[in-house]
Amino acid sequence: MTTHHIAVIPGDGIGLEVTPAALEVVQAAGRRHGFGFRFTEFDWSCERYRREGAMMPPDALERLRGHDAIFLGAVGAPGVPDHVSLWGLLIPIRRAFRQYVNLRPVRLFEGIESPVRAAIDLVVVRENTEGEYSEIGGRMNRGFPEEMAVQEAVFTRAGVTRVLDYAFTLASRRTGYLTSATKSNGIVHTLPFWDELVRERAADHPNVRWDQEHIDALCAKLVLEPSRFDVIVGSNLFGDILSDLAAAVAGSIGLAPSANLNPERDFPSMFEPVHGSAPDIAGRGVANPIGAIWSAAMMLEHLGHPAAADEVVAAIAAILAKGDLRTRDLGGTASTEQFTRAVLALLTP
Amino acid sequence: MTTHHIAVIPGDGIGLEVTPAALEVVQAAGRRHGFGFRFTEFDWSCERYRREGAMMPPDALERLRGHDAIFLGAVGAPGVPDHVSLWGLLIPIRRAFRQYVNLRPVRLFEGIESPVRAAIDLVVVRENTEGEYSEIGGRMNRGFPEEMAVQEAVFTRAGVTRVLDYAFTLASRRTGYLTSATKSNGIVHTLPFWDELVRERAADHPNVRWDQEHIDALCAKLVLEPSRFDVIVGSNLFGDILSDLAAAVAGSIGLAPSANLNPERDFPSMFEPVHGSAPDIAGRGVANPIGAIWSAAMMLEHLGHPAAADEVVAAIAAILAKGDLRTRDLGGTASTEQFTRAVLALLTP
Ligand SMILES: CC(C)[C@H](C(=O)O)[C@@H](O)C(=O)O
Ligand SMILES: CC(C)[C@H](C(=O)O)[C@@H](O)C(=O)O
Repeated sequence: MTTHHIAVIPGDGIGLEVTPAALEVVQAAGRRHGFGFRFTEFDWSCERYRREGAMMPPDALERLRGHDAIFLGAVGAPGVPDHVSLWGLLIPIRRAFRQYVNLRPVRLFEGIESPVRAAIDLVVVRENTEGEYSEIGGRMNRGFPEEMAVQEAVFTRAGVTRVLDYAFTLASRRTGYLTSATKSNGIVHTLPFWDELVRERAADHPNVRWDQEHIDALCAKLVLEPSRFDVIVGSNLFGDILSDLAAAVAGSIGLAPSANLNPERDFPSMFEPVHGSAPDIAGRGVANPIGAIWSAAMMLEHLGHPAAADEVVAAIAAILAKGDLRTRDLGGTASTEQFTRAVLALLTP
Repeated sequence: MTTHHIAVIPGDGIGLEVTPAALEVVQAAGRRHGFGFRFTEFDWSCERYRREGAMMPPDALERLRGHDAIFLGAVGAPGVPDHVSLWGLLIPIRRAFRQYVNLRPVRLFEGIESPVRAAIDLVVVRENTEGEYSEIGGRMNRGFPEEMAVQEAVFTRAGVTRVLDYAFTLASRRTGYLTSATKSNGIVHTLPFWDELVRERAADHPNVRWDQEHIDALCAKLVLEPSRFDVIVGSNLFGDILSDLAAAVAGSIGLAPSANLNPERDFPSMFEPVHGSAPDIAGRGVANPIGAIWSAAMMLEHLGHPAAADEVVAAIAAILAKGDLRTRDLGGTASTEQFTRAVLALLTP
């Protein structure tokens, strides 16, 4: 029996509640399909930061490196600045392991109330290691009238090309349609370069029909005609915005999964729900586990078990369609545990 | 009788159709309230660019400077790169005349089908002269594997403070609630500076309750609970995204107005609909004139005629509520001309 070695970082807040749910589900899927897991848990979190002064130990990346994948719950806690919790854990992992594709599927499930009445089934492919999230820049003249901050967005040919190739290939396997997010009318150095590279890569993927939209208009269209879209590719910032927005249009951020992929498999990939640690509802067992469970399904697919992954997503869809088990964020009263049990019940060996 | 001297730049595409509509409406408002206009029209446009190689003549800013306000239709045409049309006209005017506030009200009118069923009445205050729209940056190693583009976002204490002060003051005149758009968790130089300045300015506006949201979460919340918001302040890029998104949530971009304000009145302010030149429907008399007419109402307010401005917006609201006159973008068949006549009929002296 194959055993997958998974590094697990439950993190903070509801990360501690949805992570066990997701791990139970993948184990159940493994029992049906003949594979198993060995989980190594790491307590890296804001809790740890308060105790030790760092989100992770100095050898953290070394310790993660040997695993087949990383599962992350959520990080962030009141009183710990976001840039500490995120740049001390999430972002270094994405970068050190060249997880340059952040894949964020969005579907409108039957049984979910969405602000729009439309079929939605799309994937946002977000560039995940460079772009607007850059450490380059700083501040001058602190406290004086002339004070200023600058921040350099950096787009490299290699970095943009690889994520575009991933997106075009994905589009050719889906409906053959790709939309590129840009803002080259206002942002005149990086985004015209992005647009050029899109045209360049498009030439190598002649089977994909593509267009581009400025981010402002694209956000508007995602609300007014979400069914139009299939694969949307965007920079680090634009992909972040579009995936949260699309998830909201499909009813809730609580459902949204994500995969931070190193497609070359030189390093482990990382799977995490899009939602945060939600300190306001943490500890009460009411968090929606769907984002985590669906992220875990993406991990199954990455580990070579697409049928098992499909079954997990089908189980989520079936329970939502039935409509009697919904967590609070979806207007119901089901607990994390009740929803998870229902998924497990559909995955008996 | 006061006569206001207005510089008019109809621009391209439907700009040429909605601009006359808006000017007729402000003239009608003037006849009711005892003021008049002298319009000076400028043919600055992509058309002109094709003929002369420049969107505007070298002395364009000098020629605009003496006017009480500028009214702009829309610029942009197929075959003329966006960065030419925009950085050759719109953006230089915003910057040269220190129009650092871009004010974008959004309302859900009765009679409009919106993706959400909620009351919406908010204003986006967008920083309009610096931030992510910067000329600083460039490209290296063109065509080689090491090619890269960098773009520097620049936030100055003066630039951010002045727009925040405007937004806090506006909030205190409305419901006393302000939301600041940020992304200081991912973008670690400019946006933490923005957040600091928000806290600093908040201390001087103790009557305003405020919070901040990361742009990704804020976009999601604008879709899921738009009624929550009143004044939203954001950087150049974030304000652009939020105002288009909010307009879509309220049913259509075709309704959205904007004012590019120089609050000190050292220079003329500029009023323009948020929509673009829409070459696909230009020349057919079917463009929605509401964005332009509402922008013209904002111009009336700026010129010291708030009662006249309110009447124009009330006329738009009354016609939409009646529901029999809607342009194509709103699912109707009314022409630009028919809608405009209906507004004028409500503004007889
Ligand atoms: C055309 C573009 C440069 C412009 C902007 O982003 O400023 C437009 O979208 C707007 O909102 O006025
Ligand atoms: C927490 C934050 C830095 C992060 C991001 O923007 O990358 C999050 O919003 C996400 O989407 O994973």
